Amino acid sequence: MEFKEINPSPRTLMAPGPVEADPRVLRAMSAHILGQFDPEFTALMNETMEMARRVFQTKNAQTYTVDTTSRGGLETVLTGAICPGDKVLIPAFGRFGYLLSEILERCGADITLIETDWGSVFDPEQIEAELKKQRYKAVALVHGETSTSMMQPLEEIGRICKNYGALLIVDTVATLGGTEVKVDDWFIDGCIAGTQKCVSAPSGSALITYNKAIEDIILARKKVEKGIRTAEDKASSLPQIPSNYLDLAQLQDYWSPRRLNHHTEATSMQYAVHEALRCILMEGLDNRFARHKLNDKALCAGLTAMGLTIFGDLKHKMPVVTAINIPEGLDGKVLRAELLNDFGIEIATSFGPLDGKILRIGNMGYSSQKRNILFTLGALEAVLLQHKVKLPAGDAVAAALEVYREAEQ
Amino acid sequence: MEFKEINPSPRTLMAPGPVEADPRVLRAMSAHILGQFDPEFTALMNETMEMARRVFQTKNAQTYTVDTTSRGGLETVLTGAICPGDKVLIPAFGRFGYLLSEILERCGADITLIETDWGSVFDPEQIEAELKKQRYKAVALVHGETSTSMMQPLEEIGRICKNYGALLIVDTVATLGGTEVKVDDWFIDGCIAGTQKCVSAPSGSALITYNKAIEDIILARKKVEKGIRTAEDKASSLPQIPSNYLDLAQLQDYWSPRRLNHHTEATSMQYAVHEALRCILMEGLDNRFARHKLNDKALCAGLTAMGLTIFGDLKHKMPVVTAINIPEGLDGKVLRAELLNDFGIEIATSFGPLDGKILRIGNMGYSSQKRNILFTLGALEAVLLQHKVKLPAGDAVAAALEVYREAEQ
Repeated sequence: MEFKEINPSPRTLMAPGPVEADPRVLRAMSAHILGQFDPEFTALMNETMEMARRVFQTKNAQTYTVDTTSRGGLETVLTGAICPGDKVLIPAFGRFGYLLSEILERCGADITLIETDWGSVFDPEQIEAELKKQRYKAVALVHGETSTSMMQPLEEIGRICKNYGALLIVDTVATLGGTEVKVDDWFIDGCIAGTQKCVSAPSGSALITYNKAIEDIILARKKVEKGIRTAEDKASSLPQIPSNYLDLAQLQDYWSPRRLNHHTEATSMQYAVHEALRCILMEGLDNRFARHKLNDKALCAGLTAMGLTIFGDLKHKMPVVTAINIPEGLDGKVLRAELLNDFGIEIATSFGPLDGKILRIGNMGYSSQKRNILFTLGALEAVLLQHKVKLPAGDAVAAALEVYREAEQ
Repeated sequence: MEFKEINPSPRTLMAPGPVEADPRVLRAMSAHILGQFDPEFTALMNETMEMARRVFQTKNAQTYTVDTTSRGGLETVLTGAICPGDKVLIPAFGRFGYLLSEILERCGADITLIETDWGSVFDPEQIEAELKKQRYKAVALVHGETSTSMMQPLEEIGRICKNYGALLIVDTVATLGGTEVKVDDWFIDGCIAGTQKCVSAPSGSALITYNKAIEDIILARKKVEKGIRTAEDKASSLPQIPSNYLDLAQLQDYWSPRRLNHHTEATSMQYAVHEALRCILMEGLDNRFARHKLNDKALCAGLTAMGLTIFGDLKHKMPVVTAINIPEGLDGKVLRAELLNDFGIEIATSFGPLDGKILRIGNMGYSSQKRNILFTLGALEAVLLQHKVKLPAGDAVAAALEVYREAEQ
């Protein structure tokens, strides 16, 4: 047989996703398959909903998973909540802000895109100024923009959106499970996360939550399939959702006690998400956020001690991603290839205006570990030394160790 | 901790999907994560494409997976190949024919639905008669309709579609990997399959293949995202594909040597599909189809010996699903619950006009095993005896064993 079994080389995944899945999550996926309507399986689905509520810090009934990667989760919530012609404000501060706009353009939304320099975030006043100009149905934005490493504070924006009667829909793909995301306290109406970043499961599922305001829109757009339609299903009063597969109305019914047949739930990914959420709750949200913060502090101390500069507005840097400016004369592609090939460490390149200018280092989920931080700093130093960069050899790992030592006291 | 680890009760999955995943597939999923652009991972993706081509029996370059369940794969190919206003003929012979129509309705296709009684299939002449009446852009239909257990012969229909210049798009979700599917020989332009049936992996990925005719449509609808657009990307000449996530143009670029960033490939499901295809090719397509056929013969012999009648046109019954008429006075729900609770065996109910009238037994992938057939027959007999059904006790298993004995000679 010319095709070999799966046997990946050892890897330390320090890009901002996908990151290392918790080994408990990987093991959970090897459990045998249950039927999708087996009461044991639907009980698991209900537990996933409850655990996801705790991780999203919400009481939203509608909190579940979509059988897509995180991008599909974004599209599902956006195209469910937004009808053609609805005015949507998108404050974009990196590549994934553009993605929200791309998704909404296709469903016929009337989009106003405002931008800020890559490496900065928005002042809440900028959002308010836009909402004053005209009435918007929704504001859609990214919480943690991995393309720039910036994190947009949301609490005040949530309050402003509420005041102006605009829905707030937030992409927390890169932040959920690694840093605070408070859906209810921050007045977020719809929120989407991935599994392959701080949640530390494989890519392939999206976590979503939305409140009554969005649920009401969904119900008004609902249409039950001909093959399984009954008399109690009435016609929709708003335009139907454009996709069958990404149809929140159908997904909601599938996840409801009615369990109306839609797709065949991705069994093993459901096991993975269930176990990943359980691991998060066993660790405790506060402990988990503190772990990411400490590892971030150690990483940044090490990078700085090495003489590297950190990209962007440091006040708003995500604790789970750090971007460094590539030292002059060096090729980021070459550095990354050497890290991967010699050390089995993966870090990330960048997009658009930052392409070739920065390298991005993730610090997410199971990958966010003291040993990985130390290993990455040591390896990066060695690679830079190979390229004759003048740096104080040994200082980076020492500076990081000092951070850990202080924290232990 | 109130939430327990994943620990499903033992199950024999004899519904027409999801079925038992091959244990080798489940183990492959517990391999650690690789980055999505790691050369080791992209090499795996290329191997998946090549193995999928062999299983689909096609030379189509565009043969890969979509990170959705099978339903999402159907929508991806259909909404990629069909533009708003395109005339599509849908010959429906069960619930999943309606699904094709539901999906295409939402993308604005001009649909002609023709139907035949549940439990029968179409004569090729019926399709030809429709194609004579007006010019269709495409014919979309189901190969194996699990809702009725019927299988539509395709070879002649493929030739007719070719003659009339209509694309043929086929749902082989229930058949690929269990019975012959010859994409090239049957002139199928676009073909979609699931992973949770005869392919014997978990649900959560869809296998797709399409030829140059569909690829040309896709390329004419292509639009590269703003965040990663370059000068070589020109504007589209046909209406853009309605979904970003299910956009074949973007998926095709992601799976091409260009590896243009789109979603984050579902790592563990990719491992699963890779291993499942490898298992199919190691067994050999002919051996695999013969195994399903033999187990089907034994199952039907057993059911008949028990005095049960098999539903539908037996000449066109799928070898991987068998529907039995529920004996008068019995409640299918009760029978299923007893099989599940006392024996850990899952068989399936039905939809629409057949709801409450038939029970469906799957015989797919790893679940298609002599011991499972014998166990299911024995358990079903015991359950029927509990309900005082008069039947020749012991004959069902004996009849199945006789089939196996004959085959071994």
